[in-house]
Amino acid sequence: MVTTSLPARLGQALKSKQWLATTAESCTGGGVSAAITDIAGSSAWFDRAFITYSNAAKQEMLGVQPDTLAQYGAVSEPVVQEMAKGALAHSLASISVAISGIAGPDGGTPDKPVGTVCFAWADSTGWLVAETCHFHGDRQAVRVQAVDRALQGLLDRLNTLQ
Amino acid sequence: MVTTSLPARLGQALKSKQWLATTAESCTGGGVSAAITDIAGSSAWFDRAFITYSNAAKQEMLGVQPDTLAQYGAVSEPVVQEMAKGALAHSLASISVAISGIAGPDGGTPDKPVGTVCFAWADSTGWLVAETCHFHGDRQAVRVQAVDRALQGLLDRLNTLQ
Repeated sequence: MVTTSLPARLGQALKSKQWLATTAESCTGGGVSAAITDIAGSSAWFDRAFITYSNAAKQEMLGVQPDTLAQYGAVSEPVVQEMAKGALAHSLASISVAISGIAGPDGGTPDKPVGTVCFAWADSTGWLVAETCHFHGDRQAVRVQAVDRALQGLLDRLNTLQ
Repeated sequence: MVTTSLPARLGQALKSKQWLATTAESCTGGGVSAAITDIAGSSAWFDRAFITYSNAAKQEMLGVQPDTLAQYGAVSEPVVQEMAKGALAHSLASISVAISGIAGPDGGTPDKPVGTVCFAWADSTGWLVAETCHFHGDRQAVRVQAVDRALQGLLDRLNTLQ
């Protein structure tokens, strides 16, 4: 049985809708963008991405507010929502995903243990959702699961719009 | 025998020099950035990256000149040199790498066949070098080789500065 990969299915859905996607990534560090562009022809549905590892990068590249970072922390739903909206505002894309999390092994706290990853997805209709996942495994495992969840969220949204 | 991975050796070299690195990526689509941030603690040597897949993104995010794109094409040493300098100018990093190439399977020409990848590396001392590689293999193989070459070029430069 031939299964079509998640990035390939996402590419088909974007192409069919004639939408560009973009990403705003912290803990995945470009893994979502790299997965999207693994697919030949991806320039038809992808034009840029924002890898914002530091708080300064989140502010300067995406317009995340310093107050939001100070009040909620970089790994929070309010911050990824601002990242997802900022990515749309600073690109030609119609749909975006933002990811910020604690891949580990360091950086965990009782409130936000290693494996905590916040996601937000936004599109040009004004739709915006956020969720927080708690993944298990080492740094690499957390990042792989975060990339998959980010892509799946984009595809799920596109499927509701077909 | 335990071998230390290229991204881990690069991280150690950056940490030792207290330099941040950044990337400006077209055909690798975030693969170099993802490799750098695979290493725990990478926030000490990495703060952001620019994934500029389209010409518009190269201009808007990195300040690449429209004339340079028109005269030489996106896959050219003049363009990656401007990308590498733009990445330094738009980040806190002291060293950068830029990558633009034809990963395939489409997009090749007689002058620039599939597998042609241009690289430039720049640092805050004003050092700037470019090179063009011709990789073999399919899209994934070209991208993997391009990520390795980008990382190795950063490490080579750092090693000359120690």
